[in-house]
Amino acid sequence: MQISSEKYAKFDQFLVDFPVKNVAHVQINRPKSLNSFDINTYTQFGLMMDILSYDPEVRVIVLSGVGKAFSSGLDIKTAGKILGTGDEEPSRRALRFNKFIKDFQNSIKTPHTNRKPVIGVAHGISYGLAIDILAGVDIRIASEDTSFSIKEVDIGMAADMGSLQRLPKITGNLSWIKELAYTGRNFSARESQAIGFISGISKTKEEAISHALKLADIIAKKSPVAIQTTKQSINYALDHDIQAGLDQIAEVNTYALGLDTITAVQSAFTKDKPVFSKL
Amino acid sequence: MQISSEKYAKFDQFLVDFPVKNVAHVQINRPKSLNSFDINTYTQFGLMMDILSYDPEVRVIVLSGVGKAFSSGLDIKTAGKILGTGDEEPSRRALRFNKFIKDFQNSIKTPHTNRKPVIGVAHGISYGLAIDILAGVDIRIASEDTSFSIKEVDIGMAADMGSLQRLPKITGNLSWIKELAYTGRNFSARESQAIGFISGISKTKEEAISHALKLADIIAKKSPVAIQTTKQSINYALDHDIQAGLDQIAEVNTYALGLDTITAVQSAFTKDKPVFSKL
Amino acid sequence: MQISSEKYAKFDQFLVDFPVKNVAHVQINRPKSLNSFDINTYTQFGLMMDILSYDPEVRVIVLSGVGKAFSSGLDIKTAGKILGTGDEEPSRRALRFNKFIKDFQNSIKTPHTNRKPVIGVAHGISYGLAIDILAGVDIRIASEDTSFSIKEVDIGMAADMGSLQRLPKITGNLSWIKELAYTGRNFSARESQAIGFISGISKTKEEAISHALKLADIIAKKSPVAIQTTKQSINYALDHDIQAGLDQIAEVNTYALGLDTITAVQSAFTKDKPVFSKL
Amino acid sequence: MQISSEKYAKFDQFLVDFPVKNVAHVQINRPKSLNSFDINTYTQFGLMMDILSYDPEVRVIVLSGVGKAFSSGLDIKTAGKILGTGDEEPSRRALRFNKFIKDFQNSIKTPHTNRKPVIGVAHGISYGLAIDILAGVDIRIASEDTSFSIKEVDIGMAADMGSLQRLPKITGNLSWIKELAYTGRNFSARESQAIGFISGISKTKEEAISHALKLADIIAKKSPVAIQTTKQSINYALDHDIQAGLDQIAEVNTYALGLDTITAVQSAFTKDKPVFSKL
Amino acid sequence: MQISSEKYAKFDQFLVDFPVKNVAHVQINRPKSLNSFDINTYTQFGLMMDILSYDPEVRVIVLSGVGKAFSSGLDIKTAGKILGTGDEEPSRRALRFNKFIKDFQNSIKTPHTNRKPVIGVAHGISYGLAIDILAGVDIRIASEDTSFSIKEVDIGMAADMGSLQRLPKITGNLSWIKELAYTGRNFSARESQAIGFISGISKTKEEAISHALKLADIIAKKSPVAIQTTKQSINYALDHDIQAGLDQIAEVNTYALGLDTITAVQSAFTKDKPVFSKL
Amino acid sequence: MQISSEKYAKFDQFLVDFPVKNVAHVQINRPKSLNSFDINTYTQFGLMMDILSYDPEVRVIVLSGVGKAFSSGLDIKTAGKILGTGDEEPSRRALRFNKFIKDFQNSIKTPHTNRKPVIGVAHGISYGLAIDILAGVDIRIASEDTSFSIKEVDIGMAADMGSLQRLPKITGNLSWIKELAYTGRNFSARESQAIGFISGISKTKEEAISHALKLADIIAKKSPVAIQTTKQSINYALDHDIQAGLDQIAEVNTYALGLDTITAVQSAFTKDKPVFSKL
Repeated sequence: MQISSEKYAKFDQFLVDFPVKNVAHVQINRPKSLNSFDINTYTQFGLMMDILSYDPEVRVIVLSGVGKAFSSGLDIKTAGKILGTGDEEPSRRALRFNKFIKDFQNSIKTPHTNRKPVIGVAHGISYGLAIDILAGVDIRIASEDTSFSIKEVDIGMAADMGSLQRLPKITGNLSWIKELAYTGRNFSARESQAIGFISGISKTKEEAISHALKLADIIAKKSPVAIQTTKQSINYALDHDIQAGLDQIAEVNTYALGLDTITAVQSAFTKDKPVFSKL
Repeated sequence: MQISSEKYAKFDQFLVDFPVKNVAHVQINRPKSLNSFDINTYTQFGLMMDILSYDPEVRVIVLSGVGKAFSSGLDIKTAGKILGTGDEEPSRRALRFNKFIKDFQNSIKTPHTNRKPVIGVAHGISYGLAIDILAGVDIRIASEDTSFSIKEVDIGMAADMGSLQRLPKITGNLSWIKELAYTGRNFSARESQAIGFISGISKTKEEAISHALKLADIIAKKSPVAIQTTKQSINYALDHDIQAGLDQIAEVNTYALGLDTITAVQSAFTKDKPVFSKL
Repeated sequence: MQISSEKYAKFDQFLVDFPVKNVAHVQINRPKSLNSFDINTYTQFGLMMDILSYDPEVRVIVLSGVGKAFSSGLDIKTAGKILGTGDEEPSRRALRFNKFIKDFQNSIKTPHTNRKPVIGVAHGISYGLAIDILAGVDIRIASEDTSFSIKEVDIGMAADMGSLQRLPKITGNLSWIKELAYTGRNFSARESQAIGFISGISKTKEEAISHALKLADIIAKKSPVAIQTTKQSINYALDHDIQAGLDQIAEVNTYALGLDTITAVQSAFTKDKPVFSKL
Repeated sequence: MQISSEKYAKFDQFLVDFPVKNVAHVQINRPKSLNSFDINTYTQFGLMMDILSYDPEVRVIVLSGVGKAFSSGLDIKTAGKILGTGDEEPSRRALRFNKFIKDFQNSIKTPHTNRKPVIGVAHGISYGLAIDILAGVDIRIASEDTSFSIKEVDIGMAADMGSLQRLPKITGNLSWIKELAYTGRNFSARESQAIGFISGISKTKEEAISHALKLADIIAKKSPVAIQTTKQSINYALDHDIQAGLDQIAEVNTYALGLDTITAVQSAFTKDKPVFSKL
Repeated sequence: MQISSEKYAKFDQFLVDFPVKNVAHVQINRPKSLNSFDINTYTQFGLMMDILSYDPEVRVIVLSGVGKAFSSGLDIKTAGKILGTGDEEPSRRALRFNKFIKDFQNSIKTPHTNRKPVIGVAHGISYGLAIDILAGVDIRIASEDTSFSIKEVDIGMAADMGSLQRLPKITGNLSWIKELAYTGRNFSARESQAIGFISGISKTKEEAISHALKLADIIAKKSPVAIQTTKQSINYALDHDIQAGLDQIAEVNTYALGLDTITAVQSAFTKDKPVFSKL
Repeated sequence: MQISSEKYAKFDQFLVDFPVKNVAHVQINRPKSLNSFDINTYTQFGLMMDILSYDPEVRVIVLSGVGKAFSSGLDIKTAGKILGTGDEEPSRRALRFNKFIKDFQNSIKTPHTNRKPVIGVAHGISYGLAIDILAGVDIRIASEDTSFSIKEVDIGMAADMGSLQRLPKITGNLSWIKELAYTGRNFSARESQAIGFISGISKTKEEAISHALKLADIIAKKSPVAIQTTKQSINYALDHDIQAGLDQIAEVNTYALGLDTITAVQSAFTKDKPVFSKL
């Protein structure tokens, strides 16, 4: 049985361990319900990700699920509870519900706002909210058996946790994305790569995680200043015009260039592996 | 001989029928001139699409052309007429011409602004304006014989009806797009898929239309609330930063979630096919 | 030994010749240091590109490197000089350094702001700044032996000359781009095409240049009004929402449509090759 | 009894006459209900304004109300009808209601989108929707007896027809605007001028209209090209950054400068009054 | 001696009481240091404002200072501590400092993001950070003895907590604002009103607070749905173009219109004072 | 006779001297043509301002005109030359003319982009281009005899050098601005202050200049780091939403805070006048 590292043990919806130096492996830990998210799960998710974001021992985060499914999406009983019983004054109910959606979004978007790169490993069932979460991580890989679906249309609603908002910006075939979003049909890892959603496929879940941890290890040994400002700059570029992107990195590099560049350049001459201090 | 459904018969530049429940099949109907668009064609196009947008019997629109060509683009005689004879006062002529371009754009962009998904089926000659129109629909498929061309450069002008404005946002290889736009060369269905412009290829025009109608049927049976807000949300995301996209769908879902979600969830338990009321 | 055409001879960091009518072939000419850029190189680059932008004899620019490498990126000694010796007052040093980054950016972005299409031919080593430069040209092709790397992370910094700012907008698999940016690993021409970065691969550098010149020749024979406004419109679209893109080209075509369209249409009837006057 | 000019007689909610050459005086004509707007009124308003926008005989529009009140705002019975009886499916009711708000907005914003300058003359009661309408005209003057109120808060809602959206951009004391919007209290013509909402005060309604017609006459004798592009440019500037504003007018003046400038400059030499042809 | 209401007693840097129903009066409570802000003060400020934002008993917030000064700005010893001792690695120190500025901003901007209207009462010394705070509240009034200063220039820095970022958008004379920001000179309540910064002046601090509480009482008796969506809509308008502002309120009013409008309209007929339930 | 300081003597359209330490007084020097601008004038203006922007001896710039007029605007003969004789191919003429407008704009906007504050002193005739220039400076004062006019409408065109683009953002009564822009009528210093265009009035030109130089002296003695980043931040705020403004200054202050703050704080304790090193 896996046990979460002490520091993160209070987040009982997740398993967090450190299989590689400076790399946190986070697993969604509700295998009995196919790692679906209820209110407790999403509340913990945002809090935990924010702590990981400022934990100096963590340089990269790998995200997967305990058991066969990555996640089957929103827990359906939760959905019922949130919609309410209908005896509230309608405008106040709507304002309460509006706040719920925004709080949920604020949790689910934390991989994107996290200062550290997040590598998502899809496997097995990856439906609905699973796509919203994966769309917000930095690097997406999958095992061959992954079954993806933008499932929300099948519960009579538009996906509102990031899938529809992010997929047009991070993939390269909008016709395909719209077909998947309108039909809610399953799609495979291969198809996922063809539309630009994932960048690597491994045979099994185990191999996919092993591949992710190797990638994470490589990244964890780079300058954390370089990695964090690179993530910040790409994400900024997604949301701004090109000149604004150039201006942003000019400002950041004005103060971010320092010891790590000197360390890196010296290592290039001495052929030693550079070691970067924490951040 | 095909006849347009009564309601849409006044639009004589097009054939409109309903081969599948709640699915309108619109065909450009000027086969003698390879379905080129003159002033009458584009004027009718915008008006017809707006009526389809609010017709509660229509949930999905399939767009193709009568005969071999999807469309050969702008009718060249029309172009001559619009440019005028040169005896107008230049600044007033320019302001008139400016209004013409904007009116034309407002017609050609109606598949994008339509509340219902539009599936475009490219086949045969698909030049110039054909690309502008297809770039604005939701899902693009093509028959193997399709010959695409961003033709405008060959009549000495930049494409101004949507191709250049949309292709950088809906495909995944800008180098390729620029090559096609600068050279005006023909490209095939295969190449079109490689750059991310289309999401499916069928052997013949007939098979492509049949495939499109099957897709349309699947979508037409989904909740129309879910489908319309999904389209709205993806299109909004294209034009805004990620946070704005999240905010938009939070507002919309605050009021759009209702009966269809309940219907869908109940059907999931009873295993019945859900039936959604019109919108 | 190659000699630069007289007009551009003062730019000794580059070779400029005209192998095809109206096509300038610009080669980075520091083969001994693998075409790395020092202060002199980047200063000349911006000035030269701006002159090419307004040279009426130039309609297309092809960009490659003398020798095996396209470019190995920033000259490492230059980096040292720029960072300074540390005895400046910190806020003034930062403001000076900030200006340096912006001046450097203003040079490296000139292929993008150039009024003429620029075709980049990657070959051999194409590291760091090479990616920044190539990300800003219009059409990217490569020889099979090209070795790409978003190298900046390995000198402890985020790429600040355009790679991170442009790649999310011009390619179609952000997961892949982030993996390359975080790991700094080498990637091939094939992989580069798979993520949507390049649109063509030739066997050798010579064949790649020959292919680029043929493309350039085709483009150079088109209406320069059409080509320049097409480039302007695609680049504008990258940075604005769709409606703004439509508005922009409506304004431009209001005054840009004229003689070239008449010439093109008449040629279509007479079957003669149209000849367009310079711009 | 006043009678509307023949061309606009079908709009029975308004009186339209031409007291000065090329100047349309539009009066809201529901004095019995203090010129409140019901569905018919707002529907006619948008249609009528769009016709005035393209009527070449009209160069300036003056807007006031028949009788003592400019307008008391939304007809309260209309509000009831629109909210509905509550037996609709909630999400479909919301989507219908959403469309109603947007259609209403599209009517009320027509003074802003009108190609011709609109001068609003406030007098007597000018509550709620009256402020929304006035906030969208170009020039606002008032008689001394005018009583303004951002009244919506008193019917339990945020103003959604333009007041809250425009006042922060067209006036100069946001603290004051928020106080008025939160309290719904009456404010006078003097206070209105102090916060930057109106630019002129006349003693009586008659004098205010007379002053507006004199202003209109001056503007109607200017070049219509200059006036219309000036309005377009100021309105564009309100919604964009400064550089975008400069780019917009550069594009427009590229084609808008012509005969009127020559006419104007020649008149300056001959000291004749210039006469500009219609547009 | 004043004592803070129990619920807010833990925020010892402030006094919070409820002199009027549903109105919280918040006083900065460091009179010995002229209500300057140290780290503790700004940390508490953000937390306290966020609790007030969701306290259903609070509908309006009035903000002033204990003693003669509203606030003398940043505590100068705090500034020293934050800048650090200079023995940190420069890029890590910069990233830490950058986070400090953003955390500080996130606290100081809470009056703007608060769901309830905030009325700021300036009095006595109101320097530096005082202007940043006041620029973010909704309604600003002042006593005659108030001495304002955009003081930051006198400690060698640009104001970074909101003054420079907000004043150009909320006042009406940018020349004047720049003069004040460049010279750091004192300006009076009268001058403050002339440039559009404040909307009311009272003779003494006591009268100003009394006036603020009366305003607050009026607002607290309005529909909280109307007040909160009005604030949200004006603040949204400040940051977006006019059409986006119209779209935002259309979405919000789709779900926000309900019981309060019915209550308000019925009260208008019965002449009773409407009573609105909490939110 | 006044003589320009040696360094700036080559700009013969202007007089540049240094009446106060670190303050450049620039005077438009074409009094015979009422300081109208021809091509030479505007070309020199941009070049000169850019040199002043990087001259470490210059901390503030004061701008006025030699003789009675500040400027009568565009030289009318220049306008004629630019419009051309009409024998060019129309689309190429338009593209040439478009470039002319943009080059002219790039010159006239240099007071805004200048790193140093610019104080404009209006006096006598200040028509057309004079308003465009003044709208782009930081601080505007005027002598009582100043006669302003947004004159462009009287030569049949929309102002395209900044007036229409900037006035809505820097003043506080848009109704008034539109009235002035549509009528082209003269307005006085008093009216100019009432609409928020200027912040100070002096009796005579001499007193206005003397007042401007005193202001300039005060500003020149402040930390140049603080002054330049303050200008940068206010101008950025004008063009961006509030959160973006806060982010921008957070980035800048991360590296701009340093010696000048220490100097300033120490001076506050020692009561000495702080002296700041050049930038």
